[in-house]
Amino acid sequence: MASPITSQENATYFSCACQWLRQLPKKSCKKATNVAKKIKKSGQDDPRRITHSLKVGFALTLVSMFFYVQALYDSFGVNALWAIMTVVVVMEFSVGATLGKGLNRMAATLLGGFLGFGVQQLATLPGKTNQPILLAIFLFIIGAVMTYIRCIPGVKAKYDYGFSIFILTFSLVSISGYRNDESETLELSCKRLFTIIIGSILSMIVSACIFPVWIGEDLHNSVAKNIEKIGDFLEGFINDSFNVSEEKNEKSFAEEYESVLNSKTKEENMANLASWEPRHGKFQFNHPWKQYLKVGNSTRQCAYKIEALDYHIKSKIQITHELRNKIKDTCQHICLESGKALKELSLSIKSMKCLSKTNYKAHIANAKEAIESLSTMLKSNLSGGVVEVNLLEVVAIAAMASLLMDVVISIERISEQVDELASLAHFKSHNNNVHEDQTKATRTRPLPLLREGIMKRFFPRDKMPHHHNNRIHESSICSPKQNRSSTIEVIVQ
Amino acid sequence: MASPITSQENATYFSCACQWLRQLPKKSCKKATNVAKKIKKSGQDDPRRITHSLKVGFALTLVSMFFYVQALYDSFGVNALWAIMTVVVVMEFSVGATLGKGLNRMAATLLGGFLGFGVQQLATLPGKTNQPILLAIFLFIIGAVMTYIRCIPGVKAKYDYGFSIFILTFSLVSISGYRNDESETLELSCKRLFTIIIGSILSMIVSACIFPVWIGEDLHNSVAKNIEKIGDFLEGFINDSFNVSEEKNEKSFAEEYESVLNSKTKEENMANLASWEPRHGKFQFNHPWKQYLKVGNSTRQCAYKIEALDYHIKSKIQITHELRNKIKDTCQHICLESGKALKELSLSIKSMKCLSKTNYKAHIANAKEAIESLSTMLKSNLSGGVVEVNLLEVVAIAAMASLLMDVVISIERISEQVDELASLAHFKSHNNNVHEDQTKATRTRPLPLLREGIMKRFFPRDKMPHHHNNRIHESSICSPKQNRSSTIEVIVQ
Repeated sequence: MASPITSQENATYFSCACQWLRQLPKKSCKKATNVAKKIKKSGQDDPRRITHSLKVGFALTLVSMFFYVQALYDSFGVNALWAIMTVVVVMEFSVGATLGKGLNRMAATLLGGFLGFGVQQLATLPGKTNQPILLAIFLFIIGAVMTYIRCIPGVKAKYDYGFSIFILTFSLVSISGYRNDESETLELSCKRLFTIIIGSILSMIVSACIFPVWIGEDLHNSVAKNIEKIGDFLEGFINDSFNVSEEKNEKSFAEEYESVLNSKTKEENMANLASWEPRHGKFQFNHPWKQYLKVGNSTRQCAYKIEALDYHIKSKIQITHELRNKIKDTCQHICLESGKALKELSLSIKSMKCLSKTNYKAHIANAKEAIESLSTMLKSNLSGGVVEVNLLEVVAIAAMASLLMDVVISIERISEQVDELASLAHFKSHNNNVHEDQTKATRTRPLPLLREGIMKRFFPRDKMPHHHNNRIHESSICSPKQNRSSTIEVIVQ
Repeated sequence: MASPITSQENATYFSCACQWLRQLPKKSCKKATNVAKKIKKSGQDDPRRITHSLKVGFALTLVSMFFYVQALYDSFGVNALWAIMTVVVVMEFSVGATLGKGLNRMAATLLGGFLGFGVQQLATLPGKTNQPILLAIFLFIIGAVMTYIRCIPGVKAKYDYGFSIFILTFSLVSISGYRNDESETLELSCKRLFTIIIGSILSMIVSACIFPVWIGEDLHNSVAKNIEKIGDFLEGFINDSFNVSEEKNEKSFAEEYESVLNSKTKEENMANLASWEPRHGKFQFNHPWKQYLKVGNSTRQCAYKIEALDYHIKSKIQITHELRNKIKDTCQHICLESGKALKELSLSIKSMKCLSKTNYKAHIANAKEAIESLSTMLKSNLSGGVVEVNLLEVVAIAAMASLLMDVVISIERISEQVDELASLAHFKSHNNNVHEDQTKATRTRPLPLLREGIMKRFFPRDKMPHHHNNRIHESSICSPKQNRSSTIEVIVQ
């Protein structure tokens, strides 16, 4: 009985093995295809990665000439390996990062070498036997102190690499002094410094001259792009939001919002690296990179307000259909104008021109005007006959007007930051549209006045329907944010 | 006339210079004090920075023995400098980062050395004259390809350092082969590999054995702390928010919220490094670090909801004083219970015990019950006599109940993620409170039923005050978020 079972088991194992073997090429093929897809996608997402790789290959090949060319090898010898190490370590994706690392490395090697040589000289004074003890003590103290300074947040952000190289050079020079004599150590240190300088400069030149990736430009574009994104969203916002049949729009905003929100760390890092970059293209030396962070912060603040508005509007507001249509047009107008203002601001950053400054101010003014017309609607509803229902509508409209006002205020804040950026970065001004200036500027008026004004103008206290006055001035309204309360207080008083 | 002016000018310059000189020690003193303060603060913020510095100093001193001890120097010679370099570069603040870098460095040196040696052998085949050309071509291709792979986001996150060392070792070995003969290159590579392994292992041992900083523990604590933070905020929330005389509370939430929000990148980085860490303390090997990111995401989502609630409540809701007091107690109860639930969850993570699982479920159930009682208030208001005013109040309460419900739902989502974490990380379960389980578990009930139920139970369609029915079922309500609309629809129908 045992024999057939065993042979059956064997047959099962065999067939399993066969199946595994048969599936192996298929599985490997699938895995290889996946990996290949990932590799391809990485290049498609940012084709500059390909040029960067070729640049690194080129710089490496160039620096390897230190070994192949006899004249170079004669003067530097094995120390040429420091040049190769430098190229591998210093060559980064962006010019800013490469320059930062290169300058850090050169300065740190110089200073670390000096200190190391000094300490080594000092340690020889008490005699050969005490030298290693003194050297070890110095190494411990300086290693610990420099590591501590390296950990300080402000230092870590910009000079982390420099401190690491400082400790490295100091250790190598001070320790190797124990085995070599003075002149040997000095020669070695000098050759190392030279090759490191050569490697760093070569990396910087290749990085900055062959298809350079300017991180400052990336920051510039990213900030402009984020403003454009929320502008785009606002333009299509009300239209999509009033027809809440499909929920995909909500999802899409959350996604875009997420990318704007998560930009903070990325932008800070970019600004840090951009500060190493020299003058290039449209960007002067000492371009106000920090100002971009302020614009980015205002943009994120604005995105928060839009989310609150989104939150409010997507809640299937059950207003009578006629009023809904009336509101829809006005709200659409406000959002359109706000979106246009944002896109103008984005364009102003992108093109580095002040030309659209008056345009976006006009758009903001238009948006405010439209908010005013929304309050006119409030007036007509309050003076209408059927009180209870209209009151609810008034609450909804007041809340929406309030939220829209918040969005417009935050757009104004962005515009102020962009204006500051324009003056700091000397954006080109256009004199062509002075005329436009004069015609459109009349539309703008100070915001706080407007805010208090609209309600008071339409509902002077003595002209309010009197039967409300007693009870409603204390009644509850579902309106967010304290700074909007005055608006609403006036409506219902 | 000229002479007195010149002497006067000279006198002015002189006095200016004197003043500058007199102020110089004061200014330098002030600057030095500022720097000293920063240095001191860095240590106070995280005292582990001090121990880390001492550890680096110690490891450096230890590795410098390669030069001082004759026996060690005899076997490794100048190659010992690679051990020193390794210690400087590999020693990082946390064990995870040090292990990651050390393992990357050892593996990359081994593989890079192998490939470099192979390529060097291959390049000798066509003869001495063609060797440098072939070597340069290989260097270009492998340098470019490896740099490209290094740029792929998934690879960059975990193996960036390894790829950099791979390119470095490959370059050094393949190039130096041109100047040295085969056996020399092999010996050099082996010595280098050995010293790098020694340096790496020394760094890892010092990092992991002397006052280790486990980044996994940091992640664990940070996630628990963030949950506790928003729990703390919720506990004191309503109390502060209903007395909106001072605005400092709003600021303080924005700050705390900011720190929770910005934790995303930090947490991702921590989880990445933690995956290198071995079993330690309460944490097993293969601890589910990725799950912490999910808990962190849910926490941030909850923080968003709380901000919306904050936004709503801080808007000085003008409800009649009596009702306000009534609501205040209920809302306070909801927030207190929500806060308690969050703090229990935080405690559960911190202590890595499941013991409070039933407790937080009970708190969530209590919060839901309180939201129910808020709707009872809606009922009593709707059945009251004065209709217009109460309707407005109903809107405000409905919106608030809705927002609170959102907060509670997001807390439930956190609790689900924490439960998953507990099962993945094998949190200790407590059998002591089986009894508690039975008494408290009865309180929980499925949420969607509750949500639809409360309103329908209190306002059955046929019992609603009839004079509203015609107009109000279509009327506007200021209530956020679509998924809450059903609740409110029922109220006004």
